[in-house]
Amino acid sequence: MSIPTMNERDLEFQLYEMLDIENLCNRPRFADHDREVFDAILGTASKMAAELFAPHNAKADQNEPTFDGEKVHIIPEVKEALKAFIDAGFMGMQHDYDVGGMQLPSSVAMACNSIFTGANVGTAGYPFLTVGASNVLRSYGTDAQKKKYMEPMVEGRFFGTMCLSEPQAGSSLSDIKTKAVPQEDGTYRISGNKMWISGGEHELSENIVHLVLAKVPGGPAGVKGISLFIVPKYLVNEDGSLGARNDVHLAGLNHKMGYRGTTNTLLNFGENDGAVGYLIGEEHKGLFYMFHMMNEARIGVGLGAVSLGYAGYLYSLDYAKSRPQGRHPDGKDPTSSQLMLIEHADIKRLLLAQKSAVEGGLALCLYAARLVDEEHTAESEEARKEATMLLDMLTPVVKSWPSEFCLEANKHAIQVLGGYGYTRDYPVEQYYRDNRLNPIHEGTHGIQGLDLLGRKVMMNNGAGLKLLFSKIQETISIASEDSTLSEFASALEAATNRIGEVTMSVGANLMKGEVNLSLANATIYLDMFGHAILAWQWLRQAITAKAALANAKTAEDKAFYEGKLSACQYFYRYELIRIGPWADLVESLDDTTYSMAADAF
Amino acid sequence: MSIPTMNERDLEFQLYEMLDIENLCNRPRFADHDREVFDAILGTASKMAAELFAPHNAKADQNEPTFDGEKVHIIPEVKEALKAFIDAGFMGMQHDYDVGGMQLPSSVAMACNSIFTGANVGTAGYPFLTVGASNVLRSYGTDAQKKKYMEPMVEGRFFGTMCLSEPQAGSSLSDIKTKAVPQEDGTYRISGNKMWISGGEHELSENIVHLVLAKVPGGPAGVKGISLFIVPKYLVNEDGSLGARNDVHLAGLNHKMGYRGTTNTLLNFGENDGAVGYLIGEEHKGLFYMFHMMNEARIGVGLGAVSLGYAGYLYSLDYAKSRPQGRHPDGKDPTSSQLMLIEHADIKRLLLAQKSAVEGGLALCLYAARLVDEEHTAESEEARKEATMLLDMLTPVVKSWPSEFCLEANKHAIQVLGGYGYTRDYPVEQYYRDNRLNPIHEGTHGIQGLDLLGRKVMMNNGAGLKLLFSKIQETISIASEDSTLSEFASALEAATNRIGEVTMSVGANLMKGEVNLSLANATIYLDMFGHAILAWQWLRQAITAKAALANAKTAEDKAFYEGKLSACQYFYRYELIRIGPWADLVESLDDTTYSMAADAF
Repeated sequence: MSIPTMNERDLEFQLYEMLDIENLCNRPRFADHDREVFDAILGTASKMAAELFAPHNAKADQNEPTFDGEKVHIIPEVKEALKAFIDAGFMGMQHDYDVGGMQLPSSVAMACNSIFTGANVGTAGYPFLTVGASNVLRSYGTDAQKKKYMEPMVEGRFFGTMCLSEPQAGSSLSDIKTKAVPQEDGTYRISGNKMWISGGEHELSENIVHLVLAKVPGGPAGVKGISLFIVPKYLVNEDGSLGARNDVHLAGLNHKMGYRGTTNTLLNFGENDGAVGYLIGEEHKGLFYMFHMMNEARIGVGLGAVSLGYAGYLYSLDYAKSRPQGRHPDGKDPTSSQLMLIEHADIKRLLLAQKSAVEGGLALCLYAARLVDEEHTAESEEARKEATMLLDMLTPVVKSWPSEFCLEANKHAIQVLGGYGYTRDYPVEQYYRDNRLNPIHEGTHGIQGLDLLGRKVMMNNGAGLKLLFSKIQETISIASEDSTLSEFASALEAATNRIGEVTMSVGANLMKGEVNLSLANATIYLDMFGHAILAWQWLRQAITAKAALANAKTAEDKAFYEGKLSACQYFYRYELIRIGPWADLVESLDDTTYSMAADAF
Repeated sequence: MSIPTMNERDLEFQLYEMLDIENLCNRPRFADHDREVFDAILGTASKMAAELFAPHNAKADQNEPTFDGEKVHIIPEVKEALKAFIDAGFMGMQHDYDVGGMQLPSSVAMACNSIFTGANVGTAGYPFLTVGASNVLRSYGTDAQKKKYMEPMVEGRFFGTMCLSEPQAGSSLSDIKTKAVPQEDGTYRISGNKMWISGGEHELSENIVHLVLAKVPGGPAGVKGISLFIVPKYLVNEDGSLGARNDVHLAGLNHKMGYRGTTNTLLNFGENDGAVGYLIGEEHKGLFYMFHMMNEARIGVGLGAVSLGYAGYLYSLDYAKSRPQGRHPDGKDPTSSQLMLIEHADIKRLLLAQKSAVEGGLALCLYAARLVDEEHTAESEEARKEATMLLDMLTPVVKSWPSEFCLEANKHAIQVLGGYGYTRDYPVEQYYRDNRLNPIHEGTHGIQGLDLLGRKVMMNNGAGLKLLFSKIQETISIASEDSTLSEFASALEAATNRIGEVTMSVGANLMKGEVNLSLANATIYLDMFGHAILAWQWLRQAITAKAALANAKTAEDKAFYEGKLSACQYFYRYELIRIGPWADLVESLDDTTYSMAADAF
């Protein structure tokens, strides 16, 4: 029997008991849906993930894509799985009915994503990139562009990519060199090299729609001179049929530590007569368009990290329940029978660390997805604006916390299996390798720290932070009235107060113009802030679980809710405690790293 | 130009400036040596590591050993490197002259190990296992056994293994099932399966000497009934020539995430008529013999973790110095030239985290190796006993701290390289995969915690802990008189006082018989304790560096010593601060993990 890679009961808890997504069905956009529809879709995703995605996860890792100079070869299971995915309509989960979409809420779509990603991150990568690209066109494409490029993506005939980085410009997009020269016919000729392009070449779809950041000569320097272009692998005729091969070519596949099922490429644009590109929106606003989609892309990365962590957790949990090994420290009688691993306190620590990271991470990511739904469909403009503000605040944490701490969870999963976990006969080592990507792409961990401390908490005189803290305070107020939860309510209140103080203090220094020193410990700030946010998510879950426990009808439900309370307690007592020293450090404006001389390393 | 995998300047600092190994040459065993000899040996190791070990590190990883049903195939570079290693006498570094050894101090031998391991952990694995096995025979073998099995190992004609684990018994050696049935001729017939046997099969040597833990029927249950046997792959005739193939066979190679250059095997003993085994020492004392060698084996594991961390650190440092990317937060002018990565505070944080872990880890491991020298060659019995006590205390930390935190360093090295670090075109991802083994083997991280809190600090009414703390206090006293270092002296004093309190408190509870709960957070205790020990090692280094700085003659030396002071500062301000919350947690005897019900996960 194969071991599930996502916990359906927890998804149900998050979506219905925590986020009340049924309520979304009262809104016009989702009026055709109800819980039955959502359940059917989630059920289909689970079945498909288990039957078509998970089975080739290891095989795709061990047989990574190859390039014969002409074409990229990928094991056939990938295309088979994606065909089923497309046929079931998952490519258009969030798109409008009139272009063939399902008009699902983001929270449901993200839940489906987590199911597919946990089962097979490499195969799931192709559609998720495609969905990301199609979403850009949905927001900023012309009707003609939507017809020509977006709709075939929704149909799954075309796949998409996002081409931002270049070999010399990763974190520093300001320094990209790809050029876009305007032509008399209104098109552009694109030339340059794009690096780390996932899904950049393959034969999985009829065409590939590259969304490419490039600079129009004569425009402003830096990010203000970046424009966004559609550059299809094959030109598309007016009737939608495919035309000539465009001048974009695979220069090489990157060979990664993990995430091997997804091709990752260096692409050459315009080596010959220039790749034909079509401007999206206006010139020089490319980064704005791209970043406008960034919140959702970054939720996707965070959720991907959660999903890999979750898959490792469930596997190691199953192993711990069935592997006999050793006895309690006080029971050394060698003739007594051995305990299952799960009876050992330190194994339970490794499992609770995973459980608190992955279930907390899932709660956070789906909370953020629910905010995307609010942003797009809440009735009042105020509610929509509030959702945007909260999303802006939370995005760096949503992206970075799971990337860092669910990777740690994957490390623990290996440890539970011991030597077996270190072999390729078990999936946990692959999850660990796959997840190591997440702190790097879509803005590194360090970049997220700068985004949070340097921009987000300071924006609009801290209005976003105040709003977020007021939401957290609501949770604290509820929890403080429950004797079981008041310990956590107090701890979270102390944590947020302390973070508020630290933020004020660093902020004052930023205002004085000591920018570089003030931001020198931004990553520590990010981790501290993230731990508090996760503690909040745990308190939210604990409140719901506590209330549900009183009415739990089955032993399984009772154990489930008690597990939530225990994981909350673990997170507060073993994890949230870390933030005190971090707060002192950040507040002190310690210059140890900032002042370190390069030659003293 | 290839990038060094070990810092020779730091080794020089550790061996001569910190540990004064020249002083060992006053002792009879090392009287033939002097600094020139040591330098020549270290120089040979460095040259050989760079020219013969490092070049095939990636190739061996990508072309792991294969088994054709008859023989194991390993890329030829491994045998070539080992031939040079053997020819230079490294297999007998610590053995006596009269068996062809070099009679080197353990501290020098361990320094050489670190050089080879950093260059290529897979290839270095074979001789280090052989050295371990030959050391067991040196201590406990009969003269005849030494002649027959140990001397060919010193000559490099035979390789060795340690066969402890079985498929069903990893951490719990009490439950091994391999049987040893006495024969009339005084030999035994061994039958059973041994798992995770590194170097268990290959064609690199004429013969393989397996040291095998097995149970003689009728003996005591559990670990008290374990005996230790020599089981050679080929029987050895009286004249030293090879006889018949013994009944020990490769059942399969394990396919690991990393450490792939070293074969790791499942071995079947006695599938046919029983493998011939020769008892070492007395029956039922096998675990004692094995554990007597454990201190050195565990120093080897800790040092291996340091070496892999060090190699990653040096690579990422070199990369950070030569890769331009981005600008300071306050310098966003896109027309200004980019900074090197190493100018960014957060990159310096990633480098300082690595530097403080690997240089601190190296200091600790070589300090422990120096204690091995004291244990064996100090003039007074008192000094030898003191060394043993300190070693017993430090061993769990020496094994576990680098395994955990130099793995973290390898994670940081990848982060410095960004996307490039995630590809197999750069060595840092391999170091990360290789190092993931170290928290698992030679006693898992959790086992080390139980060893430290459950045994070591409690032994002899805490005599070992008191001795260790008195040594730390000596360092604190010296540092507290220096205005630059007094901040660290105070912090370390507070840390050790707090650890003392926590230990007393938990110890009192242990005495009351609440063993399982008292030890439930032993791993947290281990990490806390380890951080204090590392802080101590950093203060020792800072004292030496501060004194040397005043007389530093070259800019390089000045930068080197200043780097030591900065890394010390980093460790205290960014790492040691973690122990406060850990101490509170351990002291509270928190039962969150201990009490968690299996069905609530």
